[in-house]
Amino acid sequence: MNKRKVFSTIGIIAVVEGLLFLLPAIVAFCYREKRAMMAFLISALIAAAFGGVLMAFSKPRNDVIYAKEGFAIVSLAWVVMSAFGALPFVLSGEVSSYADAFFETVSGFTTTGASVLTSVEDKSHGLLFWRSFTHWIGGMGVLVFMMAIVSNVADRSIHIMRAEMPGPTVGKLAPRVKDTAKILYLIYIVLTVIQIILLLLGGMPFFESVIHAFGTAGTGGFGAKNDSIAGYSPYLKNVITVFMLLFGVNFNLYYLLLIRKFRSVIKSTELWCYLVIVGVSVGIITLNILPSYEGFGAALEDAAFQVSSIITTTGYATTDFNLWPQLSKSILFMLMFVGACAGSTGGGLKVSRVIIIFKLIFRELRKMLHPRSVNSVKFEGKSVEKTTLDSVATYFAVYIICLAAIFIILCFEPSGFDFETNLTAAVACFNNIGPGFGGVGPASNFAAYSPVSKLVLSAAMLLGRLEIFPLILVCSPSTWRRNR
Amino acid sequence: MNKRKVFSTIGIIAVVEGLLFLLPAIVAFCYREKRAMMAFLISALIAAAFGGVLMAFSKPRNDVIYAKEGFAIVSLAWVVMSAFGALPFVLSGEVSSYADAFFETVSGFTTTGASVLTSVEDKSHGLLFWRSFTHWIGGMGVLVFMMAIVSNVADRSIHIMRAEMPGPTVGKLAPRVKDTAKILYLIYIVLTVIQIILLLLGGMPFFESVIHAFGTAGTGGFGAKNDSIAGYSPYLKNVITVFMLLFGVNFNLYYLLLIRKFRSVIKSTELWCYLVIVGVSVGIITLNILPSYEGFGAALEDAAFQVSSIITTTGYATTDFNLWPQLSKSILFMLMFVGACAGSTGGGLKVSRVIIIFKLIFRELRKMLHPRSVNSVKFEGKSVEKTTLDSVATYFAVYIICLAAIFIILCFEPSGFDFETNLTAAVACFNNIGPGFGGVGPASNFAAYSPVSKLVLSAAMLLGRLEIFPLILVCSPSTWRRNR
Repeated sequence: MNKRKVFSTIGIIAVVEGLLFLLPAIVAFCYREKRAMMAFLISALIAAAFGGVLMAFSKPRNDVIYAKEGFAIVSLAWVVMSAFGALPFVLSGEVSSYADAFFETVSGFTTTGASVLTSVEDKSHGLLFWRSFTHWIGGMGVLVFMMAIVSNVADRSIHIMRAEMPGPTVGKLAPRVKDTAKILYLIYIVLTVIQIILLLLGGMPFFESVIHAFGTAGTGGFGAKNDSIAGYSPYLKNVITVFMLLFGVNFNLYYLLLIRKFRSVIKSTELWCYLVIVGVSVGIITLNILPSYEGFGAALEDAAFQVSSIITTTGYATTDFNLWPQLSKSILFMLMFVGACAGSTGGGLKVSRVIIIFKLIFRELRKMLHPRSVNSVKFEGKSVEKTTLDSVATYFAVYIICLAAIFIILCFEPSGFDFETNLTAAVACFNNIGPGFGGVGPASNFAAYSPVSKLVLSAAMLLGRLEIFPLILVCSPSTWRRNR
Repeated sequence: MNKRKVFSTIGIIAVVEGLLFLLPAIVAFCYREKRAMMAFLISALIAAAFGGVLMAFSKPRNDVIYAKEGFAIVSLAWVVMSAFGALPFVLSGEVSSYADAFFETVSGFTTTGASVLTSVEDKSHGLLFWRSFTHWIGGMGVLVFMMAIVSNVADRSIHIMRAEMPGPTVGKLAPRVKDTAKILYLIYIVLTVIQIILLLLGGMPFFESVIHAFGTAGTGGFGAKNDSIAGYSPYLKNVITVFMLLFGVNFNLYYLLLIRKFRSVIKSTELWCYLVIVGVSVGIITLNILPSYEGFGAALEDAAFQVSSIITTTGYATTDFNLWPQLSKSILFMLMFVGACAGSTGGGLKVSRVIIIFKLIFRELRKMLHPRSVNSVKFEGKSVEKTTLDSVATYFAVYIICLAAIFIILCFEPSGFDFETNLTAAVACFNNIGPGFGGVGPASNFAAYSPVSKLVLSAAMLLGRLEIFPLILVCSPSTWRRNR
């Protein structure tokens, strides 16, 4: 293990975060929020000082980054970013407990959007900006962001990208990882700006447009209002619906569009499955909730918004879907697991993994009928490698087991939430969605959990965002052993 | 596909079931229950006639049984047995709807023990006997039973056994399948008789002793009282606790004991894990429920009973564990998935599968750190074959997906049960346990579900008992295609 390289990279990340704090500080300055501005400036100093010291004391002897270093850098980076990112919440005095602030920051970076704030409308603009900005940074990846802007990252950083990017495989768009990171961020920025413009055209104030574009782009879910998106006009809701779906698509497809490979986009199995799942879910839910709506259009709009919000793991709400009929709730519950496309900013299992799992099952069925037949699994026109198949199947198993463990630990909670609340709290945090059902439904939040449970849920969010393995590996002593 | 062989075997099974009906008819005769006796005799005639006609019209040209024939025979046999097994409930007039009777019979054969009867104490002895006898037959397997008693089953019947016996692999105890079936049933009968004797010694009436021994042996859960086991003495409860655990052990281990291979038994990884899971669960639950009990002993007894009942998927209850604290409920909920050992009469995923899944995860973690290392998975001292590993991982995936599908379909139910009820109803039926939480907790039952939902839950029980694949394959047209 190249510990020096790991720690110096973490140092760079802390410094970068220190610089990032200047943005909300400027926002706070513009809105004359002196206390919030000071909180961000102090936080910036602390983060930069920590990062500087770490860099000074661990100058790497070489730039070698293998898989282990990749996992270690990514895991530690996310924890460190969250630990410092929580400071302004506490320093500004707007959140009283550090556990709450940490939960909120992890929820931000992991693009979960689960909140412990019982009211957001009384919070300063600086803090609301920072909260949503963490979504935007976390969506595409903290390390991918760093790779795109910092120049001295080693060439072996594909291992970092692999550890941070969601989905079963990572596609390199350009020969150099750094260029891939730049292309991804460029697409990301352009889409975000288009959304801001469309929201402004619909009459949403500028600050709120930025906040909601950040929340949508990162598939996060933090907003600026206590009732999420419910108070906005149908046009604004529909813009957000469409952009949630767009940010749930594999970004490689946008790149393919840019280089005019339209046929590859149209042929994408994952894209089609994603759209079919969304379409069918919207259809069933619309019919199911119709009796309590005045017209078909209104029901369709709410159904489309909620389905898009849940499958992309954004978590915005236009209505309290916890009060919907069981059938609609059960469909949303399933969508929580499916998640968005691989290579998007969304969480969950990812559509491509679900497709591969179904293909594995069909292969098993064929094998049972014809034991001697050799069957390969094809996806997106290519045979999937055996190691990928193994790791998809294993990922699914470890995913379910982690979920079960989180659920059980939540049940240790003395305040005694009911079965539905605990289970969907675990599901919603682990899949980076935000709201669940019952006591953590869209009309309530996670404030009532104990500090320990909040830490458990924070861990769940990180496990979900980094897809479990990096965080487990970083806790294993064999990762830290010296390279042989 | 050798259709003639399949149908003639189904014919034999119907005739065997016709003969089996004579046992409850005799019980009904002894208790002077004329109507019940007539119901069983008429059912016997119908089943035997159906079987006879089927045998006459489909004389097999050869005895070839491949994997497909095995799946087809097992799937159809279980459906046909359940369809005829439901007749006495309706013919005796003691259950008014056929859907209810079918649910009850499937629940019996699959050793689930979920009931739609709001009271059992007013039912005839004949019917109660038949209901529990289906547990006993279904526990070890309808086809294994037939193999043990009918002589003209082909030598290729390992395919039948493989399709019917639970667990990732099937061990042949003797060179001939028929002998293996006989050994298994002999052990099964001896254990059942010992339990009956121990229950009699504790003062339980003979009829109830037989009923409860059947329910325990098959890990079923049907009893003779409305409050399950709650009304019996601590001695009787403890006897049932111990025997539930014994019937959850892989029967191959009893055979190893018989042939004095004690070392192999002591070295069994699955046995140790099973005991450790039980021990740890009992420990945590005892401490968790202690405040509401008068003494440590009473809490320990109830915890041990309930843990044994759930992990072995029996489903007897000495108390309404739906009222236990969330932590205890969540542990029981997890045990519902783990299930008993492979090769036992219990349901669920099976301890051995859970162990292999964990080993697969550790292998994946090792592979991520050392991508070029070759790692085999060892279990019970041997390397597990690649095909077995693949099928365990795939089984887990299909298992979770089936469960999700059952849950969603239950949510179509117009009567609108809550989240916890629908989810645990699906889990409890699919894992062949019986009671769940909420509206299907041990103090309530499945009577309130609509007939359609009862059919869905019946399908869930069959899917769980036959481990999914046979039933899916039998619905696939390619299974029924002519052999090439």
